[in-house]
Amino acid sequence: MSATIKAVDPRTGAAGAAYPEATPADVDAAVEAAAAAATDPLLADASRRAVLLRGAAARLRDREEEVVALAGAESGLPEARLRGELGRTTGQLEAFAAVIERGDHLEAILDSPAPDAAPPRPDIRRTVVPIGPVAVFGASNFPLAFSTAGGDTASALAAGCPVVVKGHPAHPGTSTLVAGELAAAVAEAGLPAGTFGHVLAAAHEIGAGLVDHPDIRAVAFTGSGRGGRALMDRAAARPVPIPVFAEMGSLNPVVVTEAAIAARTDAIVAALTGAIANFGGQLCTKPGLVLVPEGVAGDAFAQALAAAIAQREAEVLLAEPIHRGLRAGLEALEASGAATRLTPGGDGAGRPGFRAQPAVYRAAAADLGRVEALGEEHFGPAAIVLTYTSVDEAAAALLRAGGQLTATVHAEPEDHARLAPLVEAATRVAGRVVFDGVPTGVAVTWGMHHGGPYPAASDGGAHTSVGMTALRRFLRPVAYQDAPQDLLPPALRDGNPLGIWRRVDGELTRS
Amino acid sequence: MSATIKAVDPRTGAAGAAYPEATPADVDAAVEAAAAAATDPLLADASRRAVLLRGAAARLRDREEEVVALAGAESGLPEARLRGELGRTTGQLEAFAAVIERGDHLEAILDSPAPDAAPPRPDIRRTVVPIGPVAVFGASNFPLAFSTAGGDTASALAAGCPVVVKGHPAHPGTSTLVAGELAAAVAEAGLPAGTFGHVLAAAHEIGAGLVDHPDIRAVAFTGSGRGGRALMDRAAARPVPIPVFAEMGSLNPVVVTEAAIAARTDAIVAALTGAIANFGGQLCTKPGLVLVPEGVAGDAFAQALAAAIAQREAEVLLAEPIHRGLRAGLEALEASGAATRLTPGGDGAGRPGFRAQPAVYRAAAADLGRVEALGEEHFGPAAIVLTYTSVDEAAAALLRAGGQLTATVHAEPEDHARLAPLVEAATRVAGRVVFDGVPTGVAVTWGMHHGGPYPAASDGGAHTSVGMTALRRFLRPVAYQDAPQDLLPPALRDGNPLGIWRRVDGELTRS
Repeated sequence: MSATIKAVDPRTGAAGAAYPEATPADVDAAVEAAAAAATDPLLADASRRAVLLRGAAARLRDREEEVVALAGAESGLPEARLRGELGRTTGQLEAFAAVIERGDHLEAILDSPAPDAAPPRPDIRRTVVPIGPVAVFGASNFPLAFSTAGGDTASALAAGCPVVVKGHPAHPGTSTLVAGELAAAVAEAGLPAGTFGHVLAAAHEIGAGLVDHPDIRAVAFTGSGRGGRALMDRAAARPVPIPVFAEMGSLNPVVVTEAAIAARTDAIVAALTGAIANFGGQLCTKPGLVLVPEGVAGDAFAQALAAAIAQREAEVLLAEPIHRGLRAGLEALEASGAATRLTPGGDGAGRPGFRAQPAVYRAAAADLGRVEALGEEHFGPAAIVLTYTSVDEAAAALLRAGGQLTATVHAEPEDHARLAPLVEAATRVAGRVVFDGVPTGVAVTWGMHHGGPYPAASDGGAHTSVGMTALRRFLRPVAYQDAPQDLLPPALRDGNPLGIWRRVDGELTRS
Repeated sequence: MSATIKAVDPRTGAAGAAYPEATPADVDAAVEAAAAAATDPLLADASRRAVLLRGAAARLRDREEEVVALAGAESGLPEARLRGELGRTTGQLEAFAAVIERGDHLEAILDSPAPDAAPPRPDIRRTVVPIGPVAVFGASNFPLAFSTAGGDTASALAAGCPVVVKGHPAHPGTSTLVAGELAAAVAEAGLPAGTFGHVLAAAHEIGAGLVDHPDIRAVAFTGSGRGGRALMDRAAARPVPIPVFAEMGSLNPVVVTEAAIAARTDAIVAALTGAIANFGGQLCTKPGLVLVPEGVAGDAFAQALAAAIAQREAEVLLAEPIHRGLRAGLEALEASGAATRLTPGGDGAGRPGFRAQPAVYRAAAADLGRVEALGEEHFGPAAIVLTYTSVDEAAAALLRAGGQLTATVHAEPEDHARLAPLVEAATRVAGRVVFDGVPTGVAVTWGMHHGGPYPAASDGGAHTSVGMTALRRFLRPVAYQDAPQDLLPPALRDGNPLGIWRRVDGELTRS
């Protein structure tokens, strides 16, 4: 008898439908099919892959009502958010389709031969090719946009890599439903079935088996630092190590200057309150640290933020382990003595399901990076206000806090002349530096970078899981030397048959 | 009393000058100075870095006679080769200077805001920043171009990363001399001294301490598979894992078709003989496997190659451990029974220094990837001729052989119609696919790719250690959201003050 995974409604704690858990044999079958698909010439055809991506988007839109209802029942996230997230998911699929149709990902470089040079130089032409089957581990907090058909899957498929998704046990029905639509889109596009596979699992061994499979060439992961590091360690220990593109947690520090407080406390407090508490604060870019100047203005700001957060209802969290983890983390923070709670107690106890009361704490920026408890991410509706004595101290605190997905600065024009060290520090620690806004709501644009130095992400923060350059993770360069025209990929042939931008003898050109 | 490293002349085995070995305290001092330099605004100035790179090139050229003499005495490599290698080294330094002066590495992407979109999109502008101090482990086989001032150092400095070189104990004097010129060029460019550091070491603990240092952000390595893997494992186990850009060994298979044999056996044999035996065959792109058709033509080709190789004198190897390693590897190959030696015995015994007689073996392509001894790299003047029964069998053998820096095809136009599967296999396993030539002599051009799937390189083969895109290893993206003009890097400001190519709202433009 095979194991099952039961959906749980976090709004009530009630168990729902049961879904069969994948077995090691299922993993092997999915990866073997993916390996076969990886070498199928059909998958090498970008226009066919674009058909797949657009088809998947259309199918998901067609089933919006079921997807949103099921994802809501499994995640507790509000309907409007899930409708928006589905739009983001389909938009991403279509945006990657547009990139590969234009050949913007091919990075073609052509260097003319120089037979009379010393030493003589051959004809060198370089482009990129897909790396092979990718294992995708989605996140619980975005059951659509960072899960089964999320950005990792979309960008890997766009790159020409088959994908095997390890379906998240916190939204088993949503993952199964979405996977079915993806598989149908694969079939409709005339691509081999192994182009997309889905193995639903809660057991550690299933995910581990996927990472260990010799035909898997890379892992994409969105989730906790602990989970990401475990996959990094596992992938690094393989006989053939493979890259893990992990997007993990972040403290997302926000620095507010005295001038910004004077000019727009209400607006900043309102924006931060939403960013901290909306959707249970379960966003990888939730601002977990808010740095304000020591003194009357900073105190008033902290009180205003605490008052606004105290007005919020208890938030439903995604799943029981997240609820438990948040409580344990905040208890450790309180026990450390380094932070004072500014909001009233109460953690949603007595209400059904997994709920947490949004909370604000206060501590000293000088302790950041020195008191361990202040450096922990609290995944949920909680933030710590840190008081700094100077902008330079705030900058030093950022550097001590280490790698972040984002760092945010609220300042006024009169501050700019002395902000360079703070912006420099933010640039050193973060993958994205936000001005006068909140870091949540990662826009899907060409240049978006969603990554950052470890522990925010793996690989030193050089990859992104959002934006069009997310494709690059799944491509590797190949150079052809003195190749006959008929054996070159079209991207590299004389006359530029694809009409793409290419670097020819050092100069970008489309001719 | 501190330890010393003695230079050894591999042509005679005689010990030469002694150089002090670095201590753990030296490593700490070098890395701390590098960390301080990493945040110095002077190093952020690309034009100043270009002055450093050009200055280093000029200084090395000025000392050509000493550098070539010392490198010759420490490596046994011939003078003409070392003069060429110095030219390559200085050329690389200058080529990277030209790239950063033009801003071709900045990868700027600008996305206009869309406040009325749902959800509204902010202004996003992305460029790249240096990752921080880089540890460079050079190779013994290119004491100039892949060592102290080699491609890794040049590209890391160009990217704006301070470099600490672990000087190779096989050429301690050369490394010390070159390091002195680099340090002088740093001073002349007005850059902080920590921009370039040099720790000469043979002891494992010194290199390990460098990789472990928390301020090191990446490792670049050229050398053996065993050495590279040890660094990969070490870097992956750090509290903060860092990327290792390792370029390791390769079998560099060459497939020759029957038509190519008929058309140009003499030319191919002459080219292969040089590629296998020149410089002791100690090139990471030495063709170690030559696949020829089974039958009369292939037999004749194998005999012709063996006859040409048998004419060669014993070659001086770089150092005693390489000499010992080659002998042990070939003994294991012979003991495996999978290969027959086609050239007469003799390994240079009785001659002074570390010499090896160039050798050719013969085996069946069907055994590649099945008999372990056929998949080992023999670093030295040795190659194995493998006979295949069909081009498809040759393609299958390539796939079984695994990741390579290069794969080469010798074919005639009449072959092309049926070569697609072979070229596809070559593309899947190699970082560079060479036609009708030899893989040695890696040209330094914009698009050169010198890397390949593991075990040829780390990171799935996505990085290169030669060519202008080698810079990318040492840069990470940062996105700025809604940033004021005066706080943006110049590359991202309105009006494109640097005049660089940028992707604006999806379109490449220079305006």
